[in-house]
Amino acid sequence: MIGIKDVARAAGVSQATASRALSGRGSVSEQTRDRVRAAAADLGFQVSYHASSLATGRSRNIGVVLPYVNRWYFSTVLGGLTRQIIDAGYDLTLYDFRGGLHRQSVLNDFLLRKRLDGVITVGLRLDDADATRLLSLGIPIVSIGGSLPGIASLTVDERAIGRLTADHLVSLGHTRIAHIGGEHESDLYFHISRSRREGYHASVDAAGLERRSAWSVISDYTVNSAYAVAKSLLADPHNRPTAVCCASDEMAIGVILAARDLGLHVPEQLSVIGVDNHPLGAVFQLTTIDQFVEEQGTRAALALLDELGDAQEGSSGVLPGLSELPLEMVVRSSTAAPDETQNPTFQ
Amino acid sequence: MIGIKDVARAAGVSQATASRALSGRGSVSEQTRDRVRAAAADLGFQVSYHASSLATGRSRNIGVVLPYVNRWYFSTVLGGLTRQIIDAGYDLTLYDFRGGLHRQSVLNDFLLRKRLDGVITVGLRLDDADATRLLSLGIPIVSIGGSLPGIASLTVDERAIGRLTADHLVSLGHTRIAHIGGEHESDLYFHISRSRREGYHASVDAAGLERRSAWSVISDYTVNSAYAVAKSLLADPHNRPTAVCCASDEMAIGVILAARDLGLHVPEQLSVIGVDNHPLGAVFQLTTIDQFVEEQGTRAALALLDELGDAQEGSSGVLPGLSELPLEMVVRSSTAAPDETQNPTFQ
Repeated sequence: MIGIKDVARAAGVSQATASRALSGRGSVSEQTRDRVRAAAADLGFQVSYHASSLATGRSRNIGVVLPYVNRWYFSTVLGGLTRQIIDAGYDLTLYDFRGGLHRQSVLNDFLLRKRLDGVITVGLRLDDADATRLLSLGIPIVSIGGSLPGIASLTVDERAIGRLTADHLVSLGHTRIAHIGGEHESDLYFHISRSRREGYHASVDAAGLERRSAWSVISDYTVNSAYAVAKSLLADPHNRPTAVCCASDEMAIGVILAARDLGLHVPEQLSVIGVDNHPLGAVFQLTTIDQFVEEQGTRAALALLDELGDAQEGSSGVLPGLSELPLEMVVRSSTAAPDETQNPTFQ
Repeated sequence: MIGIKDVARAAGVSQATASRALSGRGSVSEQTRDRVRAAAADLGFQVSYHASSLATGRSRNIGVVLPYVNRWYFSTVLGGLTRQIIDAGYDLTLYDFRGGLHRQSVLNDFLLRKRLDGVITVGLRLDDADATRLLSLGIPIVSIGGSLPGIASLTVDERAIGRLTADHLVSLGHTRIAHIGGEHESDLYFHISRSRREGYHASVDAAGLERRSAWSVISDYTVNSAYAVAKSLLADPHNRPTAVCCASDEMAIGVILAARDLGLHVPEQLSVIGVDNHPLGAVFQLTTIDQFVEEQGTRAALALLDELGDAQEGSSGVLPGLSELPLEMVVRSSTAAPDETQNPTFQ
């Protein structure tokens, strides 16, 4: 049987170098790496990762746990993660909770198979027991947007996001500002939605504006759901808001489409602001808070690779406590000062 | 050290049953499974999957290879895949080509690590050499929408899709029908885009309609890109089409938004039809061809699990050659007969 020794001899390098070159880990020049791989290919040598895992205790495998792979935010974060993880020579094992359906089997069974070197969780609210179970794996864990006790988190200041969206509308002179958020009790990222709405409350309270319960609306994070609730929110011309803060761009697009279908002009009769910098926002001229979604994945992957000793060039060196993610307001033309001539008297 | 024997004794079952209960494979009653897991938890027993893989030659791991995890079609298929794969007790290892960036490392390196029991490829155009390399893994492979020589494929009749979209517009009386497709040479799913346009050509040729080169447009499969090309396509009132076939719903939505921004009414002045049954289509009242995207993932996973001998209830029993996926037209109000009073004379 062909062994690593044979490959090393054929390539004219040490066994350690051959091993590094074939595993994709450690520093080996491009040239050496190519030579070793060519030698391995010539000899028909293939690394058995099962055997090498048992020997090194490393699986070269990172687990990613998220609630819904088929929603834009999560698939975009995943895009950022796959890039870094594959570049670093790791496999990515995907655990999709599918809302809550697979939650127990992932936490109780899959993660315990002990073939992961590290775990990244995205947007999950887990309780203490779940967090303890994760920590008991004894491997590095990084969380994006999670509130996992004892686990290093990359966080976006969700309250600041809510506050920024409302502050922008207040600064334009709006006094009738509604909020569409996503606090379904069943949602695994309820805590994020809640914080965004708290930021909105803080902003309108600070401005001394009225808060009407009819203007605090809950929706899914989708265009369709927000479209439906916005139809109701905007139906009564004498009691409708002149501006809407949304917890996501997809929601904001739903509001814009509902406004159009009601014959309301954006921004003359209704200002709308979202969160995300979703690519679709460009077509709708949507004002938004960019939270650099793909970059969140990139950073989390680099932070975990750091801990695994596999930092690549451009590593962020993120440490727990130094891990707040950036935000940036993108002002387009879906927000403007309210035009009182265009709106019926407020009752 | 605690062994499977101890767990079996504590749970009062045979070792084989205990093993099945802990691995999540084979038929074990819910009750027995719970009892065995409780016994394992009490004793602190955890399966080492590394060791069990070496013993059985099975990794309980399915690889999924796709070109862009962050695009709607692929993340939706992935949602269908994760459900079945996790239900069957397998890990899902995700390989994202990121367009073409990771293509070589995935094909040359990652897949050869020999820790996969099977592979599902989604929407990939691979050449003979790539297909041979995949087949040389010696494990079951299922492809969705691929044209991989020698590999079992679940296929949608892409030509029929293109033909159906155009036939619908022809049947409504349109004679000026454009097509927006996605044939960028660099795209890994070029072959799909090409087949859809061929179907459109067949339809308009059969109806004896004029084909203008200006009406055959190439775009990305995104709202934004189609919005931009549609602005040009629709700009000249004397030379614009009265109907547009799009290769995806996202493209069709871009066309509807461009039409609105040009002051054109849909469907009175422009009919638009897409492909996918994207959830966003509902808000736009978009007529489309449903290709059951999540179901494509479900079916592919079940077909592979069949081959692995792990078919679950509801298995499709799909075999190579019996594997055409369903299509269904969803007619909403974005398409209608052309209203000649609303359109300038055709020049």
